[in-house]
Amino acid sequence: MNSYNRHNDTICAPATAQGIAAISLIRLSGPESHRIIRTIFTPVSTNADMEHPVYHKLYFGTISNEEGLLDEVMVSLFKAPHSYTGEDAAEISCHGSVFIQQQLLALLLNKGARLAEPGEFTMRAYLNGRFDLAQAEAVADLIASQSKNAHRLAMNQMRGGISERIGQLRQQLLDFASLIELELDFSEEDVEFADRPAFFRLLGELRDEIKQLIESFGTGNAIRNGIPVAIIGKPNVGKSTLLNAILNEEKAIVSDIPGTTRDAIEDTIVLGGYTFRFIDTAGLRESDDMIENMGIERTYEKIRQATIILYVCDLSACSGQSAEEMLSEFRSYVSDYTKHFILVGNKIDQLGEIPPHFSEMVEMHTVFVSAKRRENIHLLAESLLEAVKDLDAQSHAIVSNIRHLQALQNASAALQQVEEGFRNGLPTDLAAIDLRDALYHLGSITGQISSDEILGNIFGKFCIGK
Amino acid sequence: MNSYNRHNDTICAPATAQGIAAISLIRLSGPESHRIIRTIFTPVSTNADMEHPVYHKLYFGTISNEEGLLDEVMVSLFKAPHSYTGEDAAEISCHGSVFIQQQLLALLLNKGARLAEPGEFTMRAYLNGRFDLAQAEAVADLIASQSKNAHRLAMNQMRGGISERIGQLRQQLLDFASLIELELDFSEEDVEFADRPAFFRLLGELRDEIKQLIESFGTGNAIRNGIPVAIIGKPNVGKSTLLNAILNEEKAIVSDIPGTTRDAIEDTIVLGGYTFRFIDTAGLRESDDMIENMGIERTYEKIRQATIILYVCDLSACSGQSAEEMLSEFRSYVSDYTKHFILVGNKIDQLGEIPPHFSEMVEMHTVFVSAKRRENIHLLAESLLEAVKDLDAQSHAIVSNIRHLQALQNASAALQQVEEGFRNGLPTDLAAIDLRDALYHLGSITGQISSDEILGNIFGKFCIGK
Repeated sequence: MNSYNRHNDTICAPATAQGIAAISLIRLSGPESHRIIRTIFTPVSTNADMEHPVYHKLYFGTISNEEGLLDEVMVSLFKAPHSYTGEDAAEISCHGSVFIQQQLLALLLNKGARLAEPGEFTMRAYLNGRFDLAQAEAVADLIASQSKNAHRLAMNQMRGGISERIGQLRQQLLDFASLIELELDFSEEDVEFADRPAFFRLLGELRDEIKQLIESFGTGNAIRNGIPVAIIGKPNVGKSTLLNAILNEEKAIVSDIPGTTRDAIEDTIVLGGYTFRFIDTAGLRESDDMIENMGIERTYEKIRQATIILYVCDLSACSGQSAEEMLSEFRSYVSDYTKHFILVGNKIDQLGEIPPHFSEMVEMHTVFVSAKRRENIHLLAESLLEAVKDLDAQSHAIVSNIRHLQALQNASAALQQVEEGFRNGLPTDLAAIDLRDALYHLGSITGQISSDEILGNIFGKFCIGK
Repeated sequence: MNSYNRHNDTICAPATAQGIAAISLIRLSGPESHRIIRTIFTPVSTNADMEHPVYHKLYFGTISNEEGLLDEVMVSLFKAPHSYTGEDAAEISCHGSVFIQQQLLALLLNKGARLAEPGEFTMRAYLNGRFDLAQAEAVADLIASQSKNAHRLAMNQMRGGISERIGQLRQQLLDFASLIELELDFSEEDVEFADRPAFFRLLGELRDEIKQLIESFGTGNAIRNGIPVAIIGKPNVGKSTLLNAILNEEKAIVSDIPGTTRDAIEDTIVLGGYTFRFIDTAGLRESDDMIENMGIERTYEKIRQATIILYVCDLSACSGQSAEEMLSEFRSYVSDYTKHFILVGNKIDQLGEIPPHFSEMVEMHTVFVSAKRRENIHLLAESLLEAVKDLDAQSHAIVSNIRHLQALQNASAALQQVEEGFRNGLPTDLAAIDLRDALYHLGSITGQISSDEILGNIFGKFCIGK
């Protein structure tokens, strides 16, 4: 397949999280895994024949090292290609003691296994054709998923979601490219095997599709990493208290002194299956305090990164302001009209009634809360979900991986070169180079084309034992 | 068996440590466990018949909830009594995502399982006669074991080590007690079925055996929880630096200002299979600082608790002192001569040669080190192992559990009452009460006699999923 299949030794690693627990699982994969198990494991049942084991069966027994009995364990063996990696493999389920795990790993190393690199089991699965690269990457996303939608996105991708779409695009392009290459072989005869108008139509379609995928990244990234929500407003309007009310815990330091929050504190919460990544910011005001001014500068940066902006104002302090004044104040902070924004009128507990001019703000989604008394926080949650509900519409083939995004951008640029080349009458052999380039980038997503460096990058981010 | 067998519902819990990992394991036990698996799990192989499953086999397939596909998993079923708990049971091995685990547990609860209490799987195993109470307690010790000897102790106990010895003692006493009870039934006839001299011999033997077990607790406790080593000495002799050198990391704050260490910092290290629990202490000196004096008071307390005392002195500062002066100074701190102590002459890097009078200290084990330069720390390690090597001699039937210790102490006291009663010619029926008491306490160790309260206490300390 490529140079990575030099990995034909036997690897081992703990597959469960570190810490004291009822059970820990240690994984082995490679040609020696069954032999190693036979040398250290004694089944309790005298009927069990480990020389001719039943695969996928749990054997109860003991593992001993030079010191004597190490643990009572369950062992199962998997025969290539019917394992996660596609190789001969084994799993040992031992007591969840850190000491036992260490001793057991030491024993496995001593018997000829080596400690697996992060992601090496999944990399072997990929190299053995168990799944493609985009699917392998989705395994890591699946494990890291923290919300319903991030989970669905990863699961969809692991089951082949984006791979299928990319595969179809690439196949169409490949069919056409072979005709172009054929023309090159017969270049002296000046024939055109490839139907030019049909090719331009295909190129247009491909670029549209790729453009859609590229545009889906914003959504995909937000689903995967959380939708960034900036909480902004003047000092002491209760932004940190609001964040606390939302998170229902005391992450931010709250005090009555204006300018308390200097760091942009980030925290996430899952609402309705979406992860929201809240960003508390320094109050927006003129300040002589250098550190505070650095905080305010950071606030503007956070506003630029946010998808949703909560603009918090203190109802008890702005009763003299007109709706227009408030809106123009807000506009002085946020110039990007594409963002969702929600006006949060805070401190309703300090007012008899809501100032009448707030009802005039029809063009802004408005919620009235008391952050301090945690009143109406659920209304704010509903507004947040309202703001993201269109994310759900794009349900299939969402790109959430930045490596895939870059590959798509490169493919798109190459296709543009191809198209321009043909239109400008460039020789076919030059266009063919760009065409190969586009094919390469599309192929790199699913791993039909891959380098050791790319693989190292991808699998190095996995956890040990996967 | 007792009222705990009301637990005939189906329990579930994660069995592996919390955190993001390649794999997590979720356990189910109880009469509904197989039905629940059938409702949520779809095997990939069309040949798999979950209505008539092969037990102890790993089935690959998918689990779905109302939202759709939740995960690709491995499932295995265990048929009573061939499971850890002795009940029908199941294990689901899913991707190690916190989200997936939560959703999977929610699904299991929704299908009729309930979340297991800590230790409930092992309690069921005990209640179903899979092992006795002392063995069940050893499971928790095994999981928590951090050194070779703690592991060996727990493994020995889990495999029946102490249970066997206690069982033998109790059986002998039980045989005799039945004769005594028989005498009570025939009390009007004034017969003696039980041979009194033989009984006194037995009582004597039993009490000797129990005494030995009680005395083994010091060793067992030290092996289980670490051998407490107090590091004491005058201010600024380098105690914290020495601790750091031993631990090979910067746990204690080290500064040149005398009196830096005020808290007794504890840390453990495993040397030669033993866990040593090091206790850094405040320097011993007269001080006006109230907080520092509280630290010094705590130092005296730590000295009382320690098994081994490292008395550190600064060689560069005590060259004028005679050996007698140093020894008497040490004696002013430590009055308990039963403790092991090691004199650590620190700062050899600041001296051309070791002061000659140190070689006169034959009655004290002495090591010369440079904590700062980490010189000769291995010699100190050897001295520590030397000090504990006699612990290893008592290799079997070591009591390490404080509940067992208390039961043994109570049994011993009851036996003494029995003996005194008989010797003082008390009526047999009074002695019989004490005898039953002794039997009760011995029986409570292995769980032949147990109350719900005791069981709740024992299993409540387990981790979830065990």
